Amino acid sequence: MRIAHIAPLYESVPPRLYGGTERIVAYLADALVDLGHDVTVFASGDSSTRAELVSARALAFRLDPHPLKSDLAAHLSMLHEVRRRADEFDLLHFHVDLLHFPLFEDIAERTVTTLHGRLDLEDLAGIYQRWPRFPLVSISDRQRLPLRFAHWVGTAYHGLPPELLEPPATPSGGYVAFLGRISPEKRPDRAISIARRAGRPLRMAAKVDAVDVGYYREEIEPLMTGGGVEFIGEINDAGKRLFLGNADALLFPIDWPEPFGLVMIEAMACGTPVIAWDCGSVREVIDHGVTGFIVDSEEQAVEAVARLPELDRGEIRRVFERRFSAPVMARRYLELYESVLTSSAMGADMSPTRSLSPTLPAQPATALVYSA
Amino acid sequence: MRIAHIAPLYESVPPRLYGGTERIVAYLADALVDLGHDVTVFASGDSSTRAELVSARALAFRLDPHPLKSDLAAHLSMLHEVRRRADEFDLLHFHVDLLHFPLFEDIAERTVTTLHGRLDLEDLAGIYQRWPRFPLVSISDRQRLPLRFAHWVGTAYHGLPPELLEPPATPSGGYVAFLGRISPEKRPDRAISIARRAGRPLRMAAKVDAVDVGYYREEIEPLMTGGGVEFIGEINDAGKRLFLGNADALLFPIDWPEPFGLVMIEAMACGTPVIAWDCGSVREVIDHGVTGFIVDSEEQAVEAVARLPELDRGEIRRVFERRFSAPVMARRYLELYESVLTSSAMGADMSPTRSLSPTLPAQPATALVYSA
Repeated sequence: MRIAHIAPLYESVPPRLYGGTERIVAYLADALVDLGHDVTVFASGDSSTRAELVSARALAFRLDPHPLKSDLAAHLSMLHEVRRRADEFDLLHFHVDLLHFPLFEDIAERTVTTLHGRLDLEDLAGIYQRWPRFPLVSISDRQRLPLRFAHWVGTAYHGLPPELLEPPATPSGGYVAFLGRISPEKRPDRAISIARRAGRPLRMAAKVDAVDVGYYREEIEPLMTGGGVEFIGEINDAGKRLFLGNADALLFPIDWPEPFGLVMIEAMACGTPVIAWDCGSVREVIDHGVTGFIVDSEEQAVEAVARLPELDRGEIRRVFERRFSAPVMARRYLELYESVLTSSAMGADMSPTRSLSPTLPAQPATALVYSA
Repeated sequence: MRIAHIAPLYESVPPRLYGGTERIVAYLADALVDLGHDVTVFASGDSSTRAELVSARALAFRLDPHPLKSDLAAHLSMLHEVRRRADEFDLLHFHVDLLHFPLFEDIAERTVTTLHGRLDLEDLAGIYQRWPRFPLVSISDRQRLPLRFAHWVGTAYHGLPPELLEPPATPSGGYVAFLGRISPEKRPDRAISIARRAGRPLRMAAKVDAVDVGYYREEIEPLMTGGGVEFIGEINDAGKRLFLGNADALLFPIDWPEPFGLVMIEAMACGTPVIAWDCGSVREVIDHGVTGFIVDSEEQAVEAVARLPELDRGEIRRVFERRFSAPVMARRYLELYESVLTSSAMGADMSPTRSLSPTLPAQPATALVYSA
């Protein structure tokens, strides 16, 4: 199949440091190439992929020091180029949320759009009512809840290349880990409290964004003075392998509707169990009692730390390989591509009316909805 | 004429406090109504206009306290609604930069797009090459320099309702004024230095954005300790009337390509001369020796302060009324609307090829270019 992936231009594909969406585009494109498909990636020119790369801009935005730039203009120019070349592809897979809707409405039936973010924002519902023909993919079933009516064709969980992160031969253990961003919805304060009550050292590998410096200084740093907490800053994939692989568990005490939570499967790839709050995607990613524990309170989290020896780290890695590897993700997307294209070939007359018609259809015709 | 104005949703129309684009939309729409036209304004629901208001969102973004919102989604939904109703209007006038291009390409010839911002951003040229059919209006001739090739149909200077700001009966005088935003490109440091060297007190009415707090604290506050500088914060239109009207001059020592510089005509409306650096639009707005002085150095600015008594404040107000009142702006836009619509009716076959054609036209066909 000739497949185009259209990535955001904020990070390179994959990102040099932090960044989720562009990372998944990179892994998915490479895995589709490995499965024999003809894949083109529209992304920033500093990307690196086994697919054909079309550079939409020399540098990804976040690392481009130029002070005068326009992310909207760069993305619209890229989409214009994708549109100009659309006939070269059987299927166009968009990772840019909703910006492409105006340009691809007439060929929506051979597109797939993965929504990578939270969907409970105030202004979103109107968009999916007005452009109901784009087949949408969620990254967890729970992610869809704020927009149940939208034209979902399935859920595809994220996946990592199996060799990217692997369990160490003999995990040193002796600490619990917190990995990600220091921000109120990630609840690093809970992680500190749980570790302390469970009597384990906590190591925190996290970046602190400019907007979160105040929160870090005022809320988190004072908690660290009690001892038993080591803050090691931002780490790369090589660092993650050691940091996660040697931990007794990853603490994931989140307080927001996490759409997927890549760090959970990074831990699983290292054979490391996850102790996670029951929010967003967590129930879909973690098998309670197998790959970790799902909890609702600090008490339960502390109990879960005591029960960690019950879990088989080899089995955690096997679950990762079975459910969350990049080849599994790529095969799932191929299923979705096929179902969208088949539906487009068979059911063209049953598709919802063009959204620019005088009355807005409240829902897409169910014939095009393939729930996972 | 049935005219639609499509405003940004960041501020209400007009803004409650700071904000340029939405202010101009408000004044232009009201002036067009006064001239007998049938005007519809697409804007946030907290706007206030004599035209018909279509609310695209209950609250403008900047004053909406809701933490989870999407400006892109809200603007795209609004544009979808404008598109759905496009046949109700003879002409659509866009004030949202470039976001509407994908949706209105097939009726570009009955649209006008005023570009309100600086145009020397890295990613912009590609947009105007790829969508060459939209008739563009600049707010100064100088604003066009980075995008000379684009499809300009004319320049329309901003205008204010004549009664909004008026000269006081007897200006108290005795100080020079700085009005706007505290930021490096506005050069408040130069204003302080000029006032001090000229031996006049300086009054600064300015807002300090979150991103500029560091600059204010580190660069500007220390300069104020020398005395002779009074900082009075952000002011509204009633405050401006007194603040500008009683000043000996407005200092406008900018260091960036100002696309228009609304504050210059606010001063002129009050009969107050402007001492301005020769940047961006300044030569087009200020008549040297009549409505103010155009300078290139602090020395020249200090000399200009000494020469202020040469200027006739009554004449400054008259120049404002002649060149920069809202009715003048509205009549200029009506000329541009007529020329665009006439050109569209006559020259449809001479228009550039659709930008989605395989080769990108480097420039629009000159037949559609009406330079001011």
